[in-house]
Amino acid sequence: MTHDELALDLHEKWQGKLDTTPKAPVNTMEDLALAYTPGVAAPCLKIAENPELAYKYTMKSNTIAVISDGSAVLGLGNIGALAAMPVMEGKCVLFKEFGGVNAVPICLDTQDTDELVRIITALAPSYGGINLEDISAPRCFEIEERLKATLPIPVFHDDQHGTAVIVLAGIINALKLTGKKVEECRIAVNGSGAAGIAISKLLLDYGFKDIVICDSSGIISPKSKRLNKIKEEMIKITNPRGIEGTLADAMKDADIFIGVSAPGSVTKDMVRSMRKDPIIFAMANPVPEIMPDEARQAGAAVIGTGRSDFPNQVNNVLCFPGIFKGALESRAPQITQDMKLASAKAIASLVSDDELSSDMILPAAFDPRVADAVSAAVREYVS
Amino acid sequence: MTHDELALDLHEKWQGKLDTTPKAPVNTMEDLALAYTPGVAAPCLKIAENPELAYKYTMKSNTIAVISDGSAVLGLGNIGALAAMPVMEGKCVLFKEFGGVNAVPICLDTQDTDELVRIITALAPSYGGINLEDISAPRCFEIEERLKATLPIPVFHDDQHGTAVIVLAGIINALKLTGKKVEECRIAVNGSGAAGIAISKLLLDYGFKDIVICDSSGIISPKSKRLNKIKEEMIKITNPRGIEGTLADAMKDADIFIGVSAPGSVTKDMVRSMRKDPIIFAMANPVPEIMPDEARQAGAAVIGTGRSDFPNQVNNVLCFPGIFKGALESRAPQITQDMKLASAKAIASLVSDDELSSDMILPAAFDPRVADAVSAAVREYVS
Repeated sequence: MTHDELALDLHEKWQGKLDTTPKAPVNTMEDLALAYTPGVAAPCLKIAENPELAYKYTMKSNTIAVISDGSAVLGLGNIGALAAMPVMEGKCVLFKEFGGVNAVPICLDTQDTDELVRIITALAPSYGGINLEDISAPRCFEIEERLKATLPIPVFHDDQHGTAVIVLAGIINALKLTGKKVEECRIAVNGSGAAGIAISKLLLDYGFKDIVICDSSGIISPKSKRLNKIKEEMIKITNPRGIEGTLADAMKDADIFIGVSAPGSVTKDMVRSMRKDPIIFAMANPVPEIMPDEARQAGAAVIGTGRSDFPNQVNNVLCFPGIFKGALESRAPQITQDMKLASAKAIASLVSDDELSSDMILPAAFDPRVADAVSAAVREYVS
Repeated sequence: MTHDELALDLHEKWQGKLDTTPKAPVNTMEDLALAYTPGVAAPCLKIAENPELAYKYTMKSNTIAVISDGSAVLGLGNIGALAAMPVMEGKCVLFKEFGGVNAVPICLDTQDTDELVRIITALAPSYGGINLEDISAPRCFEIEERLKATLPIPVFHDDQHGTAVIVLAGIINALKLTGKKVEECRIAVNGSGAAGIAISKLLLDYGFKDIVICDSSGIISPKSKRLNKIKEEMIKITNPRGIEGTLADAMKDADIFIGVSAPGSVTKDMVRSMRKDPIIFAMANPVPEIMPDEARQAGAAVIGTGRSDFPNQVNNVLCFPGIFKGALESRAPQITQDMKLASAKAIASLVSDDELSSDMILPAAFDPRVADAVSAAVREYVS
C-alpha cells in the first residue's frame, strides 16, 4: 500500500479528524435547565451587558477558527473550499494536540477579497482568534491587514508568519555555528509569495540589512516592471545595493539562501558562488531548490528543508500552536512583530550549545517544551 | 444560591460548553505525515475531483453548524451575536448528546438578510447541515427559504420546525384522548412569528382545515391591514370562515388553542368558550398564556406548555437531534414537510396506549428511543 493509499484509508476510517465534545453534562432535566434553557439566559444577559464576559462564559476564551478559501492549498494550488477541508481539519488537530487550543475548521466558498473580509469579520464574535490558512498571495496580505486593522482578536496567517518565525529561529542558530554576523549578512530570498515576503520582513525586523528578493522574473529591483503592491512596498526596504539580474546574481556572495518557491532552481555552482560557509534553506516541497547532499558537496555549512526526512525541517508546528496558546492565555489583541521575534528566539534557545550542530539547528517537532516556550514568549509582550 | 447564580458559576467553570477533540492521532512523525502533510494531499485531491467524497473523507458527513445572528435569542430578544453564544453552545451540546451529531456554534455579527444568506452560503462546504437558531421573524422565513433554494445540504430553522413537529406530535395524541377528528377541528393560533407560522403550516399539511392565526392586532383576516409577506401568504390558506376580531373571537368554539406569543393572554372564560374537551398548548415562556391549573378548572382536557415543571412539555430536544441524525445518515438534501410529518407521528407513537393520558401526550426528553425513532422517520423519506 502506498503512503497515499494509507492516508486515504485512514481518512475514510476517521470520517473527519475532529469531533465536538460536550464539557457540560446533560443527563438530567436539571442539567438541561442549567446548560440550556432557562439557565443559559443568565450568561447571555451578562455578556449582553459586558462583551468582555464572553471570555468568562463561552468557548471564545480557548477557541480559534482555522479559515481558508481553498485558493492556495499546500502545493496543490487553487482546489477550492471543499477540497481544502482535510488540511484545515488536520491543522485544527495540531492546534489542539500541540497547543491545547480548540480549533474549528472553516472553508469559505468565495475567493472575493472584500467578501472574505466581511465574512471573517462577521464570524469573529464566536472565536478568540483567527488563523488564516492557504490563501493565495497577494490577496492574503490585504485580507490579513484589513482584518488586523478592525478585529479585536488576533489574526495570523500561518503560511506567512509561522514560516517566518521558524526560518528566523533556524538562522539564529546557523549564525552561531558559522560565526556570521547579522549586520554583515547578505541574504537571497527566492519567492515573493506569502512566505517569502513575511520571512523578509521578519528578518529585517530582526536586524538583517541586506536582503534581495527574487520572483520568477529574477531580482526585484527599482527597475522591475509590473510589480504588485506588496512588491512595490518591499523594494523600498530590500535590495540596498540596487542589484539586478537572476537568482544566480542574487546568490553571488550571499551568506544565506532562502527558497520558498521553485523546486530544483539552485545549482551547486550557485552555492559555490556564495560567501564562505553558506546557509541554505531550500524549502520548496516536496522537491527542494537543491537537494541537501548536493548543497553540502558545494560547501553549504547548514542546510534546512521543508521535509521531515532530512535534518533541520522548517516545520510550522513549532510555532502556530504556541503562538495562539500564548495569545489566548494573555488575551492579546494582536500577534505583533515583537511577539514573532521573541517566539523565534525562544525556539532557537531550545537547542542547547551541546546539541547545536549543522544537523540540529531547530528543536524536534515533538519536543514537548516548544509550545510552552513560544506561548511564554508571546505572553511577555502583552501588558 | 439562585438558579441563575448556579448557571453562571457552571458556565464560568466550563469556559465554553464544547471542546474540539482530535480523532486522528499525532504522536509520531509518521502520524503527522498521514493526518497532515504530505499525506493529507491525497484526500484533498480526491475531493477536488469529486466533491461527493467530502462525505467520505471529512467531518462534513457528521457535522452541522448551529448558526444565529443573535436577533431573537430565547425570550431575551435582540441581544446580538456575542451574547447568543451560550445558547448556541448549549444547542450544540444537545445535538451531540441526544443525536450523536457534531455541531459547531457560529454567531454572526450582522443582521442584514442578504449578507446572512451570502455568509451562510459561503460557510456551507464545511458542514453537512445548517441549523438556524434564534433569528427574528419575519427575516427568518426569507433567510431559510433562500438558503433552502440554493444549498445542497439540509437547512432547518429549529424555532419554526422543531416546535411545529413537537406540537403536532402532542396534538396527534391529544386527539386520541379526546376523540376529536382532524378534519372537524377548529384551531386558534396566537402568534405569527417563527413558531406560529410553522406550526400552522405543518398542521395544514397534516390535514387540519380550519386554522385561525392571531397576531398582536387580533385575527389575521383578508381585512387586516399592514400584513407582511408571510402573513399575506398565510391568509390564503387559513381562516376559511373569514372571521374577524380578537383572540377571544378566534377561540370561541375552537377545539385547540396554540399559544406561542403572549404570556397571560388567555382567560378561563376564553377556555370555557371553546368546544367540549378543549386542547390547550400554552407555550409562552416562562409564563404561559394561561396556567395549567386554571385551564384545567375551565375544562381543558389536555394542557401542554413549554416548561419542564408541568406535564406535557413541548421540548424541541425531542426533534432536532433526530432530524439531523437522520438527514446526515441518509444524506438528505433537504428536510421536507413529509419528513417533519413522519417525525411527529414517530414521536407521538412512542407514547403507548397504556401510558397515554392527559398528563402524558409526549415522550420524556430523556427517552432514549426518541432520536432513533425520528432519524428512522427521516431516513424513510430519502430515496
